[in-house]
Amino acid sequence: MDKIISEIRKIREDREWGIFHTPENLAKSISIEAGELLEHFQWDNEFKLEEASDELADIMIYCLYMADSLNVSIEDIMNAKIQKNKAKYPVERTKGNSKKYTEFE
Amino acid sequence: MDKIISEIRKIREDREWGIFHTPENLAKSISIEAGELLEHFQWDNEFKLEEASDELADIMIYCLYMADSLNVSIEDIMNAKIQKNKAKYPVERTKGNSKKYTEFE
Amino acid sequence: MDKIISEIRKIREDREWGIFHTPENLAKSISIEAGELLEHFQWDNEFKLEEASDELADIMIYCLYMADSLNVSIEDIMNAKIQKNKAKYPVERTKGNSKKYTEFE
Amino acid sequence: MDKIISEIRKIREDREWGIFHTPENLAKSISIEAGELLEHFQWDNEFKLEEASDELADIMIYCLYMADSLNVSIEDIMNAKIQKNKAKYPVERTKGNSKKYTEFE
Repeated sequence: MDKIISEIRKIREDREWGIFHTPENLAKSISIEAGELLEHFQWDNEFKLEEASDELADIMIYCLYMADSLNVSIEDIMNAKIQKNKAKYPVERTKGNSKKYTEFE
Repeated sequence: MDKIISEIRKIREDREWGIFHTPENLAKSISIEAGELLEHFQWDNEFKLEEASDELADIMIYCLYMADSLNVSIEDIMNAKIQKNKAKYPVERTKGNSKKYTEFE
Repeated sequence: MDKIISEIRKIREDREWGIFHTPENLAKSISIEAGELLEHFQWDNEFKLEEASDELADIMIYCLYMADSLNVSIEDIMNAKIQKNKAKYPVERTKGNSKKYTEFE
Repeated sequence: MDKIISEIRKIREDREWGIFHTPENLAKSISIEAGELLEHFQWDNEFKLEEASDELADIMIYCLYMADSLNVSIEDIMNAKIQKNKAKYPVERTKGNSKKYTEFE
């Protein structure tokens, strides 16, 4: 992942795209790309693997740029959130169901 | 990143969430979380860093689950897409502008 | 609006699209189209009015189809929600600010 | 619908929300609300009708505000787009299938 991060940073630098990469613009970009991924599943479950993978990759790339724009380490924020999610969704309450934590009885 | 991937796989396994993790459901989940991130930038640029980071982390986690559900390597699809993006956005045409490749003259 | 609703119902009927119009598929469709509208505002505030209007219209069309799929009247649900919003956002607490009701002190 | 439009305009005016209602902010708002609607269909097809209807109504309300911010009539842009959609999706090519027009053979 470090090599990928280096490469997309170089892409941004070479194209002078840094000025566009505000947190707000990147949050919009992630939503836009998420919509493009979702379009592959709009009416049924038949999708083209390479095209869907390309959209997923674009979302990841914008997420990595977003971490840069927030000046955080992507691994640090994922580790922190994973711990919170584990606390919010304890195994004994969530096993085999997809309820949101706000719906626990 | 490998350690993070292992950990979220264990979370999924412990909770028997695999049956919910169809590509379609995960595509929806990424869009939903992307909307939650965007909400931090709805009306202005003042945002709470930790909350925004948490939303970004959730998107990344769903992206990693999505790669699993598509049975692809997240690094492979990112590398493949990065090469395509570099070809679509050559430095000389894109330097300092944010035009989409379909808008090049 | 009644004439528009009649016309889009006829479009759906003529094309036998009703089978695709589950609430879930239409919820995805609204998200997808919302992403397409947002794309016009991805990097700056310069947008093409007709193209943005087309995207907005598509969202509205899917919203009307969604109301049909939920078997509700679009006017009824809007009136009901407007009353809730007015209660959640009383004038004296919200005048000139964009805070979410969960952030009121 | 005219009465609804008048009422939401009064809500905006009473709360001095007009300054927040740029086309960009409203495009974000529609995406955010679309995500909230989609959340009701994240893992399965069981949804609460009133809650889903509330989310749908919120999207419609923001769409009406967006039409105002673009200074267009919601009915005019819907009528214009409906004509385009009918031309893009002729009955004989689309009957009973959900293909996108770019996928026609």
